[in-house]
Amino acid sequence: MKTQVAIIGAGPAGLLLGHLLRAEGIDVVVLERQSAEYVLSRIRAGVLETVTTGLMTRLGIDAKMKAEGMVEHGFNLAHDDQLIRIDIKGLTGRHVTVYGQTEVTRDLMDAAPGRGLQIVYEAKDVALHDLESDAPWVTWSAGGEQRRLDCDFIAGCDGFHGASRKAIPASALREYEREYPFGWLGILADVPPCHDELIYALGPKGFALASMRSPTRSRYYVQVPLTDKVEDWSEERLWDELDERFAGLSSRPIVRGPALEMSIAPLRSYVCETMRHGRLFLAGDAAHIVPPTGAKGLNLAASDVAYLSDALIGWYKNGDASGIEGYAERALRRIWKSERFSWQLTNLMHLFPQSTPFERAMQIAELDYVASSAAMQTAIAENYVGLPL
Amino acid sequence: MKTQVAIIGAGPAGLLLGHLLRAEGIDVVVLERQSAEYVLSRIRAGVLETVTTGLMTRLGIDAKMKAEGMVEHGFNLAHDDQLIRIDIKGLTGRHVTVYGQTEVTRDLMDAAPGRGLQIVYEAKDVALHDLESDAPWVTWSAGGEQRRLDCDFIAGCDGFHGASRKAIPASALREYEREYPFGWLGILADVPPCHDELIYALGPKGFALASMRSPTRSRYYVQVPLTDKVEDWSEERLWDELDERFAGLSSRPIVRGPALEMSIAPLRSYVCETMRHGRLFLAGDAAHIVPPTGAKGLNLAASDVAYLSDALIGWYKNGDASGIEGYAERALRRIWKSERFSWQLTNLMHLFPQSTPFERAMQIAELDYVASSAAMQTAIAENYVGLPL
Repeated sequence: MKTQVAIIGAGPAGLLLGHLLRAEGIDVVVLERQSAEYVLSRIRAGVLETVTTGLMTRLGIDAKMKAEGMVEHGFNLAHDDQLIRIDIKGLTGRHVTVYGQTEVTRDLMDAAPGRGLQIVYEAKDVALHDLESDAPWVTWSAGGEQRRLDCDFIAGCDGFHGASRKAIPASALREYEREYPFGWLGILADVPPCHDELIYALGPKGFALASMRSPTRSRYYVQVPLTDKVEDWSEERLWDELDERFAGLSSRPIVRGPALEMSIAPLRSYVCETMRHGRLFLAGDAAHIVPPTGAKGLNLAASDVAYLSDALIGWYKNGDASGIEGYAERALRRIWKSERFSWQLTNLMHLFPQSTPFERAMQIAELDYVASSAAMQTAIAENYVGLPL
Repeated sequence: MKTQVAIIGAGPAGLLLGHLLRAEGIDVVVLERQSAEYVLSRIRAGVLETVTTGLMTRLGIDAKMKAEGMVEHGFNLAHDDQLIRIDIKGLTGRHVTVYGQTEVTRDLMDAAPGRGLQIVYEAKDVALHDLESDAPWVTWSAGGEQRRLDCDFIAGCDGFHGASRKAIPASALREYEREYPFGWLGILADVPPCHDELIYALGPKGFALASMRSPTRSRYYVQVPLTDKVEDWSEERLWDELDERFAGLSSRPIVRGPALEMSIAPLRSYVCETMRHGRLFLAGDAAHIVPPTGAKGLNLAASDVAYLSDALIGWYKNGDASGIEGYAERALRRIWKSERFSWQLTNLMHLFPQSTPFERAMQIAELDYVASSAAMQTAIAENYVGLPL
């Protein structure tokens, strides 16, 4: 098989990139290790910046998002029993859209056949070859047979554990990492949310988040020690915990319902500054991870893809290599700012078991300052809605 | 001897408080361990918030400050060769005044005799007694003789190493502390400043500050390891270092001159939340220390004194105890915010030898964000000019 751009990974980054290139008539094949059903079963973020919704609109794949997405004009930080509303509309003139990542993926997936976007699911043992040549190629196995795809470029959109970053020699990698000393225990349930806007809360027992995917589907999290296992938590115990954490903060009582999903996720900050190696370009989680506080993961993947699609379109349409040459630098500038925001909001809103009393006092002073300063609220709001591309 | 309020310490906090109480006819005696000459020889900060200049104006001791103080409408943060101007006038409508702490102290000292403010210098071995009674008293020795002062209240304005805080039983103290892994090597010289506004710079070798006390007197600092001794540094070596640190940043070359003072100071954050013990009230450095980044030390002493003078005036004039009861809480709210700002600016602008590559990347990302965000610059500016009382 032959194509122009081989895209590894059919998550939102790979599918968005595929559609953006197809819209300009560029040949693309997307290879995905998992089945389509498996991809759709992964529960991820649900807060979209206008950068992300803008790409969906540019593609004309926004009808369902516009019909079902919830436009949010604010969100809340809470400290003990004090609610600090961040009026993102008033402070920045902009908004975010609550629409599940799963829905974004499904919409992109559904639009693929009609737009000639070829997706190969269950492509096992993907391997990347001759990245430093002008003619890289990809192999995988399907149904016991070895397949080969020749291409001009490879886009690695296959996430943190994917094959793409691993194909870069260790000696060429520059990586930065921070692991946090806690996890998030999450539950997804078909119950109406307890508040119209998200609440990120810090209380005596640590962080908790009340969020939603739609008016009838809620997503809650609580900070738990890394030693906790999901088996340690019954659904009942988690609902009790959430009742306690959001008492006096949410505008409505928490409604309980059977868990559609319940799991513990670790929190990590990670950046691979090597976003290009020869003809391979990394985008999204393949190159960087943010802790979920601030909801930047999917949005950062979308901005990477915006830069990378521009670069590849410039190459194919105008023979212009400058976009490709500048991709990593352009993308990293925004990535580092989003990493900073996610790290700062994580630091601000969690209990860190190792904090000194002075560090804990600084955290409380910062929350007190945020509560009192329109400037600081604006700084938080402009990061939350997404810094300009 | 008998008075209404005994003030321990004749630095700017003690003298300001003394004058504010005297202006309302309250009897005051100020006890100072050192000589007047020694007090004036201490080189300290030189950037005054309007809260501080406002107190001098309220006292009518502002003629020299108004004539000689330099009104500053901005200051600069620099990262490598990039200068980020913080337009404090444009962003907050306010300004700061460059006027040396030594000058403030001298003006307050000079005004004392005409206003009946009694200052006892060289009061050795000050000891505080019966703080939890309604009739506390202070003893000291002078010329080999033991003296005693009876009073209603004692104001501890005698700095971090003074006797006042030490008079509070250890079991009653709640303290918070952070020491920084570097010091500031400073030089004061009668040379014109290299730039019209302060420059706080972070470069490959760490932090440096170009500041001034007047149009003809400059104050420079560089970050040095805690193991450095001032003897390790010749004046020539320091001027060479400053040339290197401010090359391409300052608008004029650095002019060299003989050092009026040259020393290394450690950096510390410290808060004693116990600002009242019976009839003793702490104010200024006796209760809290900030690292000098951000120039908050003197200004925080001034705001403490503003609250404390209000409280004591309320007591004597209206028999109102609420100011006294609420003093610590009111003062601490502002103190914690200033501590947070000083800590944040210190973290932002210094090289920390123990930083991980990720933490270092976060620092660079924050500087990059500050450079690009009016909201973040406003947050910095509003802290720099001083949060409202």
